[in-house]
Amino acid sequence: MEAGDAGNGSAAAAQIKGSGDDASCKPLPPCCVKAKAGVPEAEAKCHDTVVSGWFTEPQSRFGKTSKVQYYNNPMWPGEAHSLKVEKILYQGKSPYQEILVFESSTYGNVLVLDGIVQLTDKDECAYQEMVTHLPLCSIPSPKNVLVVGGGDGGVLREIARHDSVETIDICEIDQLVIDVCKEFFPNLSMGFKDPRVRLHVGDAVDFLRDSPEGKYDAIIVDSSDPIGPAQALVEKPFIQTIARALKAGGVLCNLAESMWLHTHLIQDMLSICRQTFKGGVHYAWTSVPTYPSGVIGFLLCAKEGPPVNFLTPVNPIEKIQGATKAGKELRFYNSEIHRAAFVLPTFVRRELESYTTCSTSTEKEKPKESVSKSQKIKILLNNAILTAS
Amino acid sequence: MEAGDAGNGSAAAAQIKGSGDDASCKPLPPCCVKAKAGVPEAEAKCHDTVVSGWFTEPQSRFGKTSKVQYYNNPMWPGEAHSLKVEKILYQGKSPYQEILVFESSTYGNVLVLDGIVQLTDKDECAYQEMVTHLPLCSIPSPKNVLVVGGGDGGVLREIARHDSVETIDICEIDQLVIDVCKEFFPNLSMGFKDPRVRLHVGDAVDFLRDSPEGKYDAIIVDSSDPIGPAQALVEKPFIQTIARALKAGGVLCNLAESMWLHTHLIQDMLSICRQTFKGGVHYAWTSVPTYPSGVIGFLLCAKEGPPVNFLTPVNPIEKIQGATKAGKELRFYNSEIHRAAFVLPTFVRRELESYTTCSTSTEKEKPKESVSKSQKIKILLNNAILTAS
Repeated sequence: MEAGDAGNGSAAAAQIKGSGDDASCKPLPPCCVKAKAGVPEAEAKCHDTVVSGWFTEPQSRFGKTSKVQYYNNPMWPGEAHSLKVEKILYQGKSPYQEILVFESSTYGNVLVLDGIVQLTDKDECAYQEMVTHLPLCSIPSPKNVLVVGGGDGGVLREIARHDSVETIDICEIDQLVIDVCKEFFPNLSMGFKDPRVRLHVGDAVDFLRDSPEGKYDAIIVDSSDPIGPAQALVEKPFIQTIARALKAGGVLCNLAESMWLHTHLIQDMLSICRQTFKGGVHYAWTSVPTYPSGVIGFLLCAKEGPPVNFLTPVNPIEKIQGATKAGKELRFYNSEIHRAAFVLPTFVRRELESYTTCSTSTEKEKPKESVSKSQKIKILLNNAILTAS
Repeated sequence: MEAGDAGNGSAAAAQIKGSGDDASCKPLPPCCVKAKAGVPEAEAKCHDTVVSGWFTEPQSRFGKTSKVQYYNNPMWPGEAHSLKVEKILYQGKSPYQEILVFESSTYGNVLVLDGIVQLTDKDECAYQEMVTHLPLCSIPSPKNVLVVGGGDGGVLREIARHDSVETIDICEIDQLVIDVCKEFFPNLSMGFKDPRVRLHVGDAVDFLRDSPEGKYDAIIVDSSDPIGPAQALVEKPFIQTIARALKAGGVLCNLAESMWLHTHLIQDMLSICRQTFKGGVHYAWTSVPTYPSGVIGFLLCAKEGPPVNFLTPVNPIEKIQGATKAGKELRFYNSEIHRAAFVLPTFVRRELESYTTCSTSTEKEKPKESVSKSQKIKILLNNAILTAS
């Protein structure tokens, strides 16, 4: 595998066109910092070692005094997180994104897509385990599971712990991500080895449109940030397509950004999901040091049907035979962390509660269709399970 | 107030001498990254804009193309977090530390001591509210409270929400920190205005030695990292001095670093506290974006006496009259977050459980005095309260 190794160019063009032409495609709220991801240069120029979020060769070498090299992630306005680089392992470009892998000095190998850190060996456990077991431990006996994105294989590795699962479909658009991760992240890509896994390389929108209605018990959207190829994955048509592919009482776990930085984006996603998923929508979060502000959020959504209580895992991981020994031990997730993930700081609770209507222009023109008070997220009610009495 | 404004030089010398001469003073474990804080230059040289963790003037100015300025915190090996600087508000040096205040573009004003970010307007709520209410809401009716450090006033602001409190002593060694925060952090230093507050500028070791035995219901150590002037605050003699000053059933809240980065330091602190506090020692953590790895930990310790159950707040903040309106609303803390803070990721649980003996050389020479298995932290037992059943 070499730098610049390409994939399917025409597929990429089709995917980008598909997103852009969608009438429901709306711009990100102006306050959403992710909108800056397309023009990182302005932020990146502060560092000698970084151009557009990419590691570059040092500009001066004086033997022992040559500069320390850092990879810098300047995607969040006003702040940047840098990781010390030991060695660049891979640089390349697929039809969808730029891919960088480097060995860091203290976080193991690091995967970067379009300048944004996706995972590191050190802290991938928190993300992979939470995004998988929050949904799968919330339903009694998941059988058919779909992963959208997830080309690194980490979510597959986690799903494989569930012995009730019969088929694991994965729809990843970028073959190059899969290939690169198989080479540099064996502890994640091991997930592809499970015989229940069926890989589909292509557009998840097309894949889901062709899927039988009510096929899946759980769908996990393990995408990159909602900019570029992944933008369509947080929009209403896609959310509706997902809902259609789920069984009654089936569940979706979608990424939902940082509670410290992206409240407006979270509100928009909550609104969209709430309109579609009548079985309940809940926000959860966890600690991931290498993500902006050190946290990542999840939206847990249930399709109408048999009731789902996300806050008390009905299918606790500790009771699944062999679950914590399959391949390797769990490092982050447990049933207590599951419940604690739904407990929100006061400011988050307040901001999500005060959100009563979707802020899109389309909806502003139709006030009668705005979200009613009774549809507000039931965060207080759910958190009450943990309330001292 | 001007840059270089000095304080009491002789007091500083005495304090440093006091720490250094103490026979119990042991080096930090080699794995502890904080040991590098004294020589930040090696890490800091990666950025043009930064020397020793300090903002410097841009090296080139070309009108509109001049570089964006970042403040960089390079104290953690292999990573750095940077905040965009709008304006330097203060630079100075007290006998104890270098003090920097700047206005950031997205985190409000930022306080930096000896190159390490102490607080920002944006996320100070998480730290100040948790370090205060975790201990104070765990005991029925706190009356006498002591703050060690805390010169910014934020913890005082939070203690003031408790109407049962009669006296709030604060022992801060650095008058300049207090003065600077009164000027640039009015939302924190407002804590000094409460009539119950009695300020003592000086060495906390001396202050506690002169305090009556059993005086305090709660002691909160709101210090900088355990390097330099604050190093003595995590050592056994000081912990014993604190215990002496507490009532039976009184509680201590001490800072306990990041679960992602500093396991060995946490283990050492746990061991020391466990030897002294027989009423229980518990680790808790919370999200603070501008601290290394995005989290900070707390050690909650209870002196033998009336039993204290830290995990279920006996004195819930929501039931204290006027508590959430005193000055300003709570932004982060609530009773659910209190309970969730004690829930640990699996790897943290495992590492703290496997820790059976203190690793200091003194203790290695006395195997019979090593910590017995029965003294292990009761993390599983406590977390069971949140276990799904």
